Amino acid sequence: MDTAFPTLLVLDLTGTFAFALNGALIAIRVARFDIIGVITLGMVTALGGGIIRDVFLDSLPPATFSDWRYLAVAATGSLVAFAFGARMDRLARPIVVLDAAGLSLFAVSGALKALNFEAGLAQAVILGAITAVGGGTLRDMMVSRIPVVLRSELYAVPALAGALVLVVATQAGAPVVPAAVAGAALCFAIRMLGVRFDLHAPAPPGADRQG
Amino acid sequence: MDTAFPTLLVLDLTGTFAFALNGALIAIRVARFDIIGVITLGMVTALGGGIIRDVFLDSLPPATFSDWRYLAVAATGSLVAFAFGARMDRLARPIVVLDAAGLSLFAVSGALKALNFEAGLAQAVILGAITAVGGGTLRDMMVSRIPVVLRSELYAVPALAGALVLVVATQAGAPVVPAAVAGAALCFAIRMLGVRFDLHAPAPPGADRQG
Amino acid sequence: MDTAFPTLLVLDLTGTFAFALNGALIAIRVARFDIIGVITLGMVTALGGGIIRDVFLDSLPPATFSDWRYLAVAATGSLVAFAFGARMDRLARPIVVLDAAGLSLFAVSGALKALNFEAGLAQAVILGAITAVGGGTLRDMMVSRIPVVLRSELYAVPALAGALVLVVATQAGAPVVPAAVAGAALCFAIRMLGVRFDLHAPAPPGADRQG
Repeated sequence: MDTAFPTLLVLDLTGTFAFALNGALIAIRVARFDIIGVITLGMVTALGGGIIRDVFLDSLPPATFSDWRYLAVAATGSLVAFAFGARMDRLARPIVVLDAAGLSLFAVSGALKALNFEAGLAQAVILGAITAVGGGTLRDMMVSRIPVVLRSELYAVPALAGALVLVVATQAGAPVVPAAVAGAALCFAIRMLGVRFDLHAPAPPGADRQG
Repeated sequence: MDTAFPTLLVLDLTGTFAFALNGALIAIRVARFDIIGVITLGMVTALGGGIIRDVFLDSLPPATFSDWRYLAVAATGSLVAFAFGARMDRLARPIVVLDAAGLSLFAVSGALKALNFEAGLAQAVILGAITAVGGGTLRDMMVSRIPVVLRSELYAVPALAGALVLVVATQAGAPVVPAAVAGAALCFAIRMLGVRFDLHAPAPPGADRQG
Repeated sequence: MDTAFPTLLVLDLTGTFAFALNGALIAIRVARFDIIGVITLGMVTALGGGIIRDVFLDSLPPATFSDWRYLAVAATGSLVAFAFGARMDRLARPIVVLDAAGLSLFAVSGALKALNFEAGLAQAVILGAITAVGGGTLRDMMVSRIPVVLRSELYAVPALAGALVLVVATQAGAPVVPAAVAGAALCFAIRMLGVRFDLHAPAPPGADRQG
């Protein structure tokens, strides 16, 4: 707990910043919202996963809300995206990379916090994935898109893999920081390879793949 | 409580299985998701109502998450649907029947758990209905459909009726098991009659019924 | 707390009534739902913001659910709208005014409850805004509309302003009732001026305003 807490905070705040940029860029690119819409979607994307995690762990009020640093980082990320987002030529690439970064950091921070709350090991892996995909799912539901976790892409798989690495490594006695770095790196690598090579999880038997 | 708890668990797990199959079949039929999308939508449908119920009862962490049997049953139901769903000629019928089964079981299990937590009687009826419709509402919102509870069909009415039977019967001194069976059977019967004969709740005065 | 609680309750119940009418009228006008859909959307709109607030404050079970008056007021408002809504020639105007009223009352009630729970001052302002926009956001997500808080309108800004007035005034020693009235009045005025003169928050630099 002594070494876990600062690690958890750093992972969480970095993931929050990445997801705030991502959500705000999507608000600009997909929906052309005004500043309030951009900040709101940035903050929902950045803070949603951690709030769901904290409800599941009965860790209320959510850290997001009781600790001003989460709010400040999420608001800052959204404002940075608002100020610079529209000038970028193509937003598709940074949106994907920031989403993968947030996914990776929250997968390990969610699993780590679940272990700190003495959740079971399977629960910690699943909660890591829920934390990772939660904010993006709320983001997509708010702009009436099918949540990326449901679409035909590798999205939940890397989050589960990253959380699994963290849980197995720390249970095997590895220190928290390298376990978290390894888990996040694996998640990020799988996600970006999936995007790069357009990899998919298996479709139902007999189903035609949709375009 | 001694007899209520196993009853509650059986109702909950059976309802979880039915809703997992239902959500996964909808993921296959409506959206042609891959295996992760199918499992995710199955689990959201199966576990969403109980999570909302447990938030309302301050019974956190949700049973869904702290008790591995819920996760295992929801994942199994989703995988079964994934394996066999695409081979079925017509999925419309099992989707409707499984949804009605989940609705009925969760209406009584939600009301029963609320009574165990000493909620008021009206609250127990309403929470039964919320538990019953919650997972399907999240499911529909995730695939951008108007939630079935809002559409012109008998859906909340049978859930309220089933929960009411359970609350009235147990308050009148009836044992839990027959009260739950009676409530669930009534809910299932009303729902299936509503589907069969295309029954609707009244529309607003002066409004034309939509197609 | 002695004077705050009845004030909080009056603000909350009045806001609940306004939002219940609003949500139910939208269910009639936009979606032509039946009576259950109208009541459900009315109750989600009326009770959603307060439930989110109570989760954030760890004030569970939510007041909405443990206090029957919230349920009764939300159901009554929805039924009133169902009975009289379809006869109104134009529903657009009352929908907007009721929404502004609910927004204003919940902005100050949310901030006030957060102060009662010893949240930080910035948190109280933000939670006021979340309480104000929460129910309408759920409402819009359920009928597959982009939530009004994200659209190019002054919506979160008046809620933040109203909550800010309440927090600053009560911290400066003002009594609760005039502080709440001033905050709600400011929120209502900004929102209605924004609607009347079609005011918007700034769009991202370089972006074209959408129609």
